[in-house]
Amino acid sequence: MATSLHVAVDVVGGDHFPENPMAGAKLALAAHSHLILHLLGPESLIREEAQSQGLDLSRCVIHDAPEIVGMEDAPSAALKTKPHSSIALGNGLVKKGHAQAFVSAGNTGALLAASMFILGKLEGVARPTIGTVYPTIKGFRLLLDAGANLELRAEHYLQFAKMGRIYAEHLMGIEHPKVGLLNVGEEAEKGTEMLIEAYNALQGLSEFTGNIEGRDILTGKADVFLCNGLVGNLLLKFGESIPDVLSLLLGKTMKEKNLEPAQQALVAEVFKEAMQPFNYENVGGMPFLGVDGISMVGHGGSTPKAIFNMISNAMHCVEVELNQRILTSLN
Amino acid sequence: MATSLHVAVDVVGGDHFPENPMAGAKLALAAHSHLILHLLGPESLIREEAQSQGLDLSRCVIHDAPEIVGMEDAPSAALKTKPHSSIALGNGLVKKGHAQAFVSAGNTGALLAASMFILGKLEGVARPTIGTVYPTIKGFRLLLDAGANLELRAEHYLQFAKMGRIYAEHLMGIEHPKVGLLNVGEEAEKGTEMLIEAYNALQGLSEFTGNIEGRDILTGKADVFLCNGLVGNLLLKFGESIPDVLSLLLGKTMKEKNLEPAQQALVAEVFKEAMQPFNYENVGGMPFLGVDGISMVGHGGSTPKAIFNMISNAMHCVEVELNQRILTSLN
Repeated sequence: MATSLHVAVDVVGGDHFPENPMAGAKLALAAHSHLILHLLGPESLIREEAQSQGLDLSRCVIHDAPEIVGMEDAPSAALKTKPHSSIALGNGLVKKGHAQAFVSAGNTGALLAASMFILGKLEGVARPTIGTVYPTIKGFRLLLDAGANLELRAEHYLQFAKMGRIYAEHLMGIEHPKVGLLNVGEEAEKGTEMLIEAYNALQGLSEFTGNIEGRDILTGKADVFLCNGLVGNLLLKFGESIPDVLSLLLGKTMKEKNLEPAQQALVAEVFKEAMQPFNYENVGGMPFLGVDGISMVGHGGSTPKAIFNMISNAMHCVEVELNQRILTSLN
Repeated sequence: MATSLHVAVDVVGGDHFPENPMAGAKLALAAHSHLILHLLGPESLIREEAQSQGLDLSRCVIHDAPEIVGMEDAPSAALKTKPHSSIALGNGLVKKGHAQAFVSAGNTGALLAASMFILGKLEGVARPTIGTVYPTIKGFRLLLDAGANLELRAEHYLQFAKMGRIYAEHLMGIEHPKVGLLNVGEEAEKGTEMLIEAYNALQGLSEFTGNIEGRDILTGKADVFLCNGLVGNLLLKFGESIPDVLSLLLGKTMKEKNLEPAQQALVAEVFKEAMQPFNYENVGGMPFLGVDGISMVGHGGSTPKAIFNMISNAMHCVEVELNQRILTSLN
């Protein structure tokens, strides 16, 4: 039997709590026999929801966290005004070694601030970052930074490249991942002064494949797309909006063409399957890279399946010793 | 009979010259009886192509421009090393008043540099800009800046907002266009220091609708999307790549599902029609906003129809007195 692995779960994070985090926890307990879960939130709420979902608490530890950080709470103030929140206590469990990872679908800014404050940075890391998986015709690839660092210096791009490479290889299963710098053209002298400096700093990295353009993302020309957090956040949310908008356009076209119901159903079915690469539910969540401990955030709208995948991904980060690999690559 | 309108056309611009510019010119002459075209390029090439396409030159003036600026020529050097190019001579015709507009599907950077150097800036303009129309579920909307200015100060955002508003209203036919600032969140305090300053500067504009996010583009939450040229260029090229990538994904899905040929044809037909909002051919080209004269650039891959639409759009810019309106709004 494998050694137990302890993961702390924020039961009051995201848009659908406590039901989705608890349902995801239930799926994870069923899938992973060596998993112990630490459930964080108001104790009575957790116990009620466990009963209502028929969740067996024998492999769970409940930690009463009476304060709830909302999606709209200011990230900088959340720790101070709500020291007994699931976010504060969850990172605390990781810091003390009681849990090996913490996962939450809550307020990303507050989670980043808490993980940096409580866990601290890995030695040699200038700035932690958060990425997002991005759909391409080759499958999901990694986009870094996804919004944590709106402006970057050349040294940050280089560190993000190193951390992203490790994540792509060991967590996404991409062999020899290529790192591309998002820019307005392919030539080395393209872009802002900062991007030119970043290009030069990245030259020393064997995985660096040069500048790539906006048209190279969906075609998967690189495995790690480097960009500042403004660009990353805009691309992330833009990408998320594509399936719904296309579905609307297709529906409108089918109506105009007076398609029969069976024909409409066929088109909708093909489209839905073709859009599977855009289904973030299959990924679940991402860790803050560069933080001294595994602290992971998922989409606010996370479904039970997404929460389950986030917990599994957190276990995977622990198992492959993500942070040890990052430390080795940076120092 | 309407007064003649003179438009200069770069016959050696873009990826498919001279055939596409000449074919587009032919379409424009047929559609607009008061149009006089000034054709720029090596004279023998123009005459040969005119003969081959059966283009009647009676409403054309040929200007021999023996030097050709290629798509890869450095924008800054093009004017100096090739003073007799179609780009230099075309802007010169506008400057001298021999033509009221110049259109080209050539090297965007060289076109911008030449138009700024030869035509100069409109009074009060800090920086000229180039936008792109962007597909949304409400139809095409305007994205500014599309790559001419990679970094912006607050005052630039404000001027771009004013110029974009005029373009959206008078050239795109959008009543009371709303201007949105692309950012990582809706709140006024979101984003970089520069974006916060831009937000504050834009507050005075009645058309300003606040910050908008990446998910708000395809849904058309604003009519003018403001961003720096790095973001704009990445989004522009990303958007252009969507139809082909989705077509690939749909094809793959249909193959996996073993659809019959008739079913495949149906799905492909619906998809192609639904993607019409993404068809840039229907727009053709955009003028450099803030330049003292109408100088317009189109996609390098412009088809004859796209060139035709660019010429028509240039005429429209002249007819609605675009630059007079911009001057009034800025000063």
